[in-house]
Amino acid sequence: MKILLLNPNTSEVITDQLAEVARRYAAAGTEIIPATGAFGVPYIANRAEAVIGASAALEILAAQHRNVDGAILAAFGDPGLGAARELFDIPIVGLAEAGMLTACMLGKKFAIVTFSTALGAWYQECVEWNQLQDRCCAIRMLDQSFQSIGSVRDEKEELLAELALTAVNEDGADVIVLAGAPLSGLADRIRDRVPVPMIDCAAAATKQIEGLVSLGLKTPEVGTFRRPVAKPTTGVSEVLAARIEHRS
Amino acid sequence: MKILLLNPNTSEVITDQLAEVARRYAAAGTEIIPATGAFGVPYIANRAEAVIGASAALEILAAQHRNVDGAILAAFGDPGLGAARELFDIPIVGLAEAGMLTACMLGKKFAIVTFSTALGAWYQECVEWNQLQDRCCAIRMLDQSFQSIGSVRDEKEELLAELALTAVNEDGADVIVLAGAPLSGLADRIRDRVPVPMIDCAAAATKQIEGLVSLGLKTPEVGTFRRPVAKPTTGVSEVLAARIEHRS
Amino acid sequence: MKILLLNPNTSEVITDQLAEVARRYAAAGTEIIPATGAFGVPYIANRAEAVIGASAALEILAAQHRNVDGAILAAFGDPGLGAARELFDIPIVGLAEAGMLTACMLGKKFAIVTFSTALGAWYQECVEWNQLQDRCCAIRMLDQSFQSIGSVRDEKEELLAELALTAVNEDGADVIVLAGAPLSGLADRIRDRVPVPMIDCAAAATKQIEGLVSLGLKTPEVGTFRRPVAKPTTGVSEVLAARIEHRS
Amino acid sequence: MKILLLNPNTSEVITDQLAEVARRYAAAGTEIIPATGAFGVPYIANRAEAVIGASAALEILAAQHRNVDGAILAAFGDPGLGAARELFDIPIVGLAEAGMLTACMLGKKFAIVTFSTALGAWYQECVEWNQLQDRCCAIRMLDQSFQSIGSVRDEKEELLAELALTAVNEDGADVIVLAGAPLSGLADRIRDRVPVPMIDCAAAATKQIEGLVSLGLKTPEVGTFRRPVAKPTTGVSEVLAARIEHRS
Amino acid sequence: MKILLLNPNTSEVITDQLAEVARRYAAAGTEIIPATGAFGVPYIANRAEAVIGASAALEILAAQHRNVDGAILAAFGDPGLGAARELFDIPIVGLAEAGMLTACMLGKKFAIVTFSTALGAWYQECVEWNQLQDRCCAIRMLDQSFQSIGSVRDEKEELLAELALTAVNEDGADVIVLAGAPLSGLADRIRDRVPVPMIDCAAAATKQIEGLVSLGLKTPEVGTFRRPVAKPTTGVSEVLAARIEHRS
Amino acid sequence: MKILLLNPNTSEVITDQLAEVARRYAAAGTEIIPATGAFGVPYIANRAEAVIGASAALEILAAQHRNVDGAILAAFGDPGLGAARELFDIPIVGLAEAGMLTACMLGKKFAIVTFSTALGAWYQECVEWNQLQDRCCAIRMLDQSFQSIGSVRDEKEELLAELALTAVNEDGADVIVLAGAPLSGLADRIRDRVPVPMIDCAAAATKQIEGLVSLGLKTPEVGTFRRPVAKPTTGVSEVLAARIEHRS
Repeated sequence: MKILLLNPNTSEVITDQLAEVARRYAAAGTEIIPATGAFGVPYIANRAEAVIGASAALEILAAQHRNVDGAILAAFGDPGLGAARELFDIPIVGLAEAGMLTACMLGKKFAIVTFSTALGAWYQECVEWNQLQDRCCAIRMLDQSFQSIGSVRDEKEELLAELALTAVNEDGADVIVLAGAPLSGLADRIRDRVPVPMIDCAAAATKQIEGLVSLGLKTPEVGTFRRPVAKPTTGVSEVLAARIEHRS
Repeated sequence: MKILLLNPNTSEVITDQLAEVARRYAAAGTEIIPATGAFGVPYIANRAEAVIGASAALEILAAQHRNVDGAILAAFGDPGLGAARELFDIPIVGLAEAGMLTACMLGKKFAIVTFSTALGAWYQECVEWNQLQDRCCAIRMLDQSFQSIGSVRDEKEELLAELALTAVNEDGADVIVLAGAPLSGLADRIRDRVPVPMIDCAAAATKQIEGLVSLGLKTPEVGTFRRPVAKPTTGVSEVLAARIEHRS
Repeated sequence: MKILLLNPNTSEVITDQLAEVARRYAAAGTEIIPATGAFGVPYIANRAEAVIGASAALEILAAQHRNVDGAILAAFGDPGLGAARELFDIPIVGLAEAGMLTACMLGKKFAIVTFSTALGAWYQECVEWNQLQDRCCAIRMLDQSFQSIGSVRDEKEELLAELALTAVNEDGADVIVLAGAPLSGLADRIRDRVPVPMIDCAAAATKQIEGLVSLGLKTPEVGTFRRPVAKPTTGVSEVLAARIEHRS
Repeated sequence: MKILLLNPNTSEVITDQLAEVARRYAAAGTEIIPATGAFGVPYIANRAEAVIGASAALEILAAQHRNVDGAILAAFGDPGLGAARELFDIPIVGLAEAGMLTACMLGKKFAIVTFSTALGAWYQECVEWNQLQDRCCAIRMLDQSFQSIGSVRDEKEELLAELALTAVNEDGADVIVLAGAPLSGLADRIRDRVPVPMIDCAAAATKQIEGLVSLGLKTPEVGTFRRPVAKPTTGVSEVLAARIEHRS
Repeated sequence: MKILLLNPNTSEVITDQLAEVARRYAAAGTEIIPATGAFGVPYIANRAEAVIGASAALEILAAQHRNVDGAILAAFGDPGLGAARELFDIPIVGLAEAGMLTACMLGKKFAIVTFSTALGAWYQECVEWNQLQDRCCAIRMLDQSFQSIGSVRDEKEELLAELALTAVNEDGADVIVLAGAPLSGLADRIRDRVPVPMIDCAAAATKQIEGLVSLGLKTPEVGTFRRPVAKPTTGVSEVLAARIEHRS
Repeated sequence: MKILLLNPNTSEVITDQLAEVARRYAAAGTEIIPATGAFGVPYIANRAEAVIGASAALEILAAQHRNVDGAILAAFGDPGLGAARELFDIPIVGLAEAGMLTACMLGKKFAIVTFSTALGAWYQECVEWNQLQDRCCAIRMLDQSFQSIGSVRDEKEELLAELALTAVNEDGADVIVLAGAPLSGLADRIRDRVPVPMIDCAAAATKQIEGLVSLGLKTPEVGTFRRPVAKPTTGVSEVLAARIEHRS
């Protein structure tokens, strides 16, 4: 099966990291097709950037959804995930959603661990959108600057392992969700330093989207994720306009 | 004071209706400055269209925030409201937020009444974003097509009055929130047919933004609505890029 | 418009402070009419004193509701607010309610900051009555005696500014609600020392009641705040009895 | 042990009914001491009347708490219960509280069944004050006038039995809480017509207060129900003032 | 009345302690009939052991329910309580349930205090099963080994008193629920060292079951605790099989 | 990988149905190893039977966990799932858990549809254990007898399709979770009659356990699902005793 791994940010280095992890965990026969946002910011950290990232995600999906069997919306926080599910008729999972739901099968409470306090409010809204507040015991964030988004997982490896340990010891986390696309690949490296299961969201999302595609479920014809009726658009990119106007 | 009344949709007829109501309820000395989205759809009905509307809202604010004392994000559902609060340093209220919080001072439970079932899922997410689920007893929607968005409030006046009555009698609503920018102006007309207070969100938002501007509160320097640090952008409109990159 | 500013406590010095703030923030054309409780305690700190304060509030309203366009129930905790809304047909807002709902338009989470631990349980019940638990991140209280209720805001100014800062830094408050009628007027003074918006509840209540009166909404004929049917009374003050018995 | 059965309303006929039930269920050795409110309304149906009833309850307790081992606040809705617990150092249970907590040991969900729609909003606030919303599946109310409060349980016996059955069949109630002091004594009569356990709150409160007195627990010295510090009062009845001012 | 006090664990020393407390608090005329689990572990500390304890509880009840008027399921956590209520037609209360519901009549928030961190997850699930999360402010646990289950309450008396005090001071507990059958009898001893009411669950359960038996309520014929229809069994003990198959 | 598909009931016909579905959806290379409960009832419908089923599940796992890479606890309601996770160091998913979490990636609200009202209370407790109440809009159950548990999915096929449709139209379900092991295999057959995705829990659980095994996560050393410390047992089966006593 073909899986679109779409990074709604503009950092190709992050897309590469995500694709590397996705391919490592993908089943034989799964082809990972990476894509990077054409506009926006290097990585989404807040609600404002998420608005832009959501648009970028819809653009990529409009262009490529016909060529794939499923898609991973690969920014923690899942910008535009609900919108994407409405507009396109393939299964789509978000990085955050997949990581958190996977964590629910491993513990009563998970903690989200990430690399910057700038991300906290946006991640909290993502937990709430998924209505998983009762399962999330903490969002733990490093409070330090870092050199580059592509290297933050290496630069802060030790501190992030310690932060995960703090979430276990002080917040009572049964599972750690390592959050933020830039941290993909880290879980395997710090596994020995953290005494509970640790979720790499790119890995979890890969397994979840493979599962959904395998289930071969029907596209909803009614309900809150049915495709909206056609509506005229103004000033929207051609691929997205065509989809909204039911021309594609 | 100058209040930007921004309609993130592309229908100028709706902007005009909203402005008419806002001016009717505005205090002496309040100037209402209407603006209409340059791109998107005629009216937002779902999560997908809200992504586009949120971008349109940020564009309008980026262009005009320096010229006004406060802003009303005038689409029920408040697309991009959190993002707008992060990026700009003026008070901003959403149509839904203002309508619902005003309703909270008039009853224990409010019902949202609107003109199309297409709006339900998106409005429900808005209630949840405001964490007002315990105060909202129902979202009641007409299940019929209508001729034009500019005339839906006239065409369905009688049915909407009946629907409001149903929300009172069957859902136990103490207050009715008439939802959707296209319904602005309706509350006054059907007032005699509904036995509880009925909120016109454009009127409520006008009073709320006037109140916030009058309070003269400080812009947050920390917390989840502080302005994000500067970040480089790619492919974003110049006015918005300038704001994100702290060049304006 | 005429606004009754009713202090259900017996301290005229607090009524004066409240009126001073209300007048400072009132629109041109708004007349603030202060009233002080004829019986009870100098300030309400707990559930027992709130029972007495609620009675005092109803007495004042019974005597004066015909002469005003709206009323502010000016004790944080809003003793008797629901009862007042049932019995009288003018808009009424509570100090706590107005402060907290205004805070909701400025941040995701607000903290309540006040001058005595004696107030905590009663304030918490007020948050719950408003069903705003998910928006209130903390109730922070000074744990010290003070010389007089009329001077507590001066005496503890520095400590209260520090406590607000603690709520921001440790509880993640986006907004501070300075709670307790005796603290009215403090927000403006410590504004520079606290990095987030700070609500003076008397100011917020003034704007909210002005807004409600301007909206000119209908009095509910059904629902949980409709006027109760007439009922005979025994041993109740004449003005209140007349209202309950539908003689006025 | 001596148990004060205090009816905060003015209807002695209801006090008599309550006392009859309490005595029927009381253990050997329990003396039931009835008291009726000296002021207020014949029965409390709403928030406004509850404010008055709460004052009446405090007055009775102030006069009699020294002479008894415990007290039942015998109006469903429990007006002033929190206040009473603060001020007096004997165990006190409310009719609603005792009925609902007892119901929790008999089923997952209870329904409240009562004789008038006028009571709904006030009863709902009582459920919420106890934070038992997740256990209460419905509040079912008759929507008809009745001849007298003393005879409503006889007059509506058949309809109330049917309403209880409706709560079982349509709301999924595992237990019925017959609510409102005027319905005391009804449960035994309609027992054969309702297929689930039915709580007579006067009976339940009698057993709960006997239990609490038997446990011989300590009066709280700290916490939200500790006795408030002494405070001067104005215009409050002598017995109540003495208690608030720590003169008794 | 005859009350079965069933300890679903295998420690007779604990059964003896429980019976001693139950008899001390029982009314004249109440006969306490102790029973100890025939299989399982010395005391239940987690979900796995609770599965076994639940089976042991059902076995004891199947053997003895005909001979008693009510039963106490005497392990905090109440293993198998819902199952027991379905299968048997006598009132049954759990140690945790009785302790927590009793605490609700004494404070807004209770804390659970117990002797081992191993118990935390299982106790938390018990709080949630009772849907009392909003009333439980903390579960405080000692983090130390102990010599024997029969003597832990003596060995750790001082530490448990301190832990209760911590729950009062740091968690805001109005009431302490001393949790775990092995702590029965402790509350009376440390009463002077803790400034709030402290619940001995064996005492509370004794009063609650006496109350329920006295109320003489009907066994549910419908609802979620009605007796299940007969079903064939395989490999289940004869007394339990007979009950499930409706042969007894 | 080897996956234990354990049916904690005694019906081999159901085990066969489950295995057939699991194998149909399993990846190449996944071996499904079915097992059936040695004792208990033909199918679990309530809390009492779930206690027995939980024991049966632990017995099967104790005997076989060393021979497999992961396990599916294949009774909707997931009896003993938490216990199993504590005791054994392989990934284990429950039928209900896997079905519901999968549904969360397809819609905001799912409805549970099943074949008998007897199952409702137990399923509701399962939803609550997973803290997914906000995502579950209804539990819809047929209210009719059926001929045999092995044929109920055939006998009621038409009625179950209609019931699913009702859940979509009246409860607003975005997704249907067909619940109860006896319904495995039904989703594919009625797919064309229901306009939203429909989850076959055996299929969903197969994909989820394959995903978890592929992620190769670490067994928790701390947290609420860590393995309990060794404890002596009495009267427990040898395989289970050995595991609890850390002899295996």
